[in-house]
Parts: sequence; structure tokens; C-alpha cells
Amino acid sequence: MPSKLDQESASDRPSDAKTAFLTRIREAAVRQFAESGYNGTSMRDIGSLVGVHAGSLYVHIKSKEDLLYQIVGEIAESGEAALQLVEASDVGAIDKLRMLARIHLRWSMANPDAAKVFEREWMRLNGAQLAEVQVKRQRWADAVERIIKAGVDDGTFRDMDVALAAVAFRSVLNANYTCDGDPDVDGVTLADEFVDFLFNGWVASEHR
Amino acid sequence: MPSKLDQESASDRPSDAKTAFLTRIREAAVRQFAESGYNGTSMRDIGSLVGVHAGSLYVHIKSKEDLLYQIVGEIAESGEAALQLVEASDVGAIDKLRMLARIHLRWSMANPDAAKVFEREWMRLNGAQLAEVQVKRQRWADAVERIIKAGVDDGTFRDMDVALAAVAFRSVLNANYTCDGDPDVDGVTLADEFVDFLFNGWVASEHR
Repeated sequence: MPSKLDQESASDRPSDAKTAFLTRIREAAVRQFAESGYNGTSMRDIGSLVGVHAGSLYVHIKSKEDLLYQIVGEIAESGEAALQLVEASDVGAIDKLRMLARIHLRWSMANPDAAKVFEREWMRLNGAQLAEVQVKRQRWADAVERIIKAGVDDGTFRDMDVALAAVAFRSVLNANYTCDGDPDVDGVTLADEFVDFLFNGWVASEHR
Repeated sequence: MPSKLDQESASDRPSDAKTAFLTRIREAAVRQFAESGYNGTSMRDIGSLVGVHAGSLYVHIKSKEDLLYQIVGEIAESGEAALQLVEASDVGAIDKLRMLARIHLRWSMANPDAAKVFEREWMRLNGAQLAEVQVKRQRWADAVERIIKAGVDDGTFRDMDVALAAVAFRSVLNANYTCDGDPDVDGVTLADEFVDFLFNGWVASEHR
């Protein structure tokens, strides 16, 4: 006689299989969007990767754009959660930025395709979905600027162009997916090196 | 009676018109590749932008890939010329990197679409054209690393991970096309601010 656990597993199976299939579709989409771009990817391409006809994908997914939204929306969501954690923490600007850099680079080095899609393809969304992601991206950018400004205001950082500093910070964080990844460097090490460049500079102290 | 000048102009006209038309095709391609990606752009799209049927483009252009090569190859070429100039100049690492940053950012702020295509679409090339552009991009990256290393060796820069420093430098240089451009900042100002961040750091001197 099957135990209660077995019965539960059996009744969960169809939904488990569906979830697993959806995950495979999303993983294939991330890979293909990263490789060929959103506009260069068809539902047929994604179907081929998961071994089904494009038509079968529409049972699970409304459209290619909906798939992009699922991918990009979830990343924006996690980014926001991480940001709230960092902003709420009781540390100074240097530590907050280091935390943000570590979280971002650890994630993007583990998920280079997703990072690429999030940076390069989010603007293919439309309407409310585009607006939602745009707002979340802007909030992230604003928070970086706010943290840097707090650092300038409390004298941790020198007086500088805060908006440009925020651009430099964000671009260094996105460096990893444009460079040939060094397999020996992990996300935390990379984050610490990158923020150290920006915080302490390259010039030897005797040359300042 | 037409002057000699008029006669020359008349005989030059077909070739002038051809050059002008080719320029329009390339400008349209840059715009469209930047907007929709190389894979998301058809020769028909480019034809529409210049007001001709796709078929008429093939009189002037071998293929969409050839068009990408013309665009990307020329940028790689100019980049290499600028690099040689900078490397040959008799100044230290700081000034060389500042020169590179100024040249790059002045150009990319004036040509944001071309900069985007050069960074994001060059890898759509194939065979010998891909290899050629790849080699030129690598030479640029190597030169940045070489200049930074010289700076470390002569004591201008502190002892640091030169490869990561080069990645940070290159990513900051490419910041401008991922951020919302500030119309009040020109390429030279931006370059000087960005390299100043990397050279001198953000942390106020009394906090070091």
C-alpha cells in the first residue's frame, strides 16, 4: 500500500513536470536571447532547444515577449530585494557599495547569459511590462547615486560628480559579461577588486 | 559654356551619388543594428530606411554581413590607428590612458549607435572578417593592459591585478552607451572624470 508521501508525490507529478518543463523553456530562452538577441530568436528556436514544436510552447507561454518579461522581471525583482537589504543595513557608503557589488557580481558570474539578457534585451518589452522593469532599473540606479551622495555628504568620499560616479560604478559592475571571464576569479574577489579601484584609485600614494 | 570645374563635377556626379548612397545605406544600417540588433534587422528594413527595395541594396552591398563588416571593420581600424598614436607618444601611463579615454569617449558620445554596434554586434561576423576584428579588439585590450603594467612597473600605479584593472578601464570607457547620456557632459569631460575615479579613487584623503 502506498504511503501518504507516495500518494502526494503521485498527485504532484503533473504539476512538477509542468514546472520542470517551464524551467527548461526559460533556460533555453535565456541561452538563445543571450546568443542571438531577443529579436534574433524565434519561438521555433526555443522549441528546438527543448525538443518540442513552437506550437507546444504556447500551451505554457503566452508569447515570446511574455517569456522575456518572466526572465527580466524576476531579475529586476531580485535586484530590488537585494537593494532594500543593502540600503537598510547600518553601515557606511563604502560597505553598502561593496555589498551591492558582491551580490551583483556573484550572481552575474554564475548567470552570465541572464546578466546579458537583463542588460541588453529588457528594452524589447512593451507597455506596462516595459514601464515596470524601467522603474525598477531606475530605482536601482537612483539608490546607487543616493549611497554615493551619502558618502560624499558624510566626508567618506571626496567632493565629486555623484551622477558620473554612479555611472562608473554601474558600468564596472557590468564589466564581467563583456570581458573574457577569468575562471580563477570568483564574483566576490572581482567585486572587491573593482570597488577597491574606484575607492582607492590606482596611483601609488607617493605619486599623489 | 561650362567651365572645366563644371565638367569635372558633371563627370564625378555618378560616383559622388554612389558614395552618398552607400553612406546613407551604412548610416541606416548602423541605426537599425543599434535599435533592433543585427539579427533583428533585415535588408528590407535597411531598404525601407533609405527608400529602396532590398533588392536594390545588393547592387551596392554583397550582404547584410558585409555591411556589418564595413561598419565594424572601419571602427576597429580607427581604434588601432588611435592606439598606435597613443602608444608611440612619449608620456607616462596616466597620460596615455587619459588620451585613450578621451579619444574613445569623444568618438562614442558623438556616435552612440556605432559604439553600440561595435560593442554588441561584432561577434555576428564570420570567418576571416570575424578573426580580423577579434584580433584588432584583442590588440586594443592588450595595449591597455601593457600601458597599465608599465605604470605599475615604474611605480606610478600601486601593485595591483593588471588584467582586472584593464577590464575595469575598458568597461568604464563603454559606460556611456548603457547610461542615459547627460547632454551637458562632453566626451573629454567624461573621460577626465572617469579616469580620475580610477586613478585617484573616491575616498577622501583623510579617510585613507
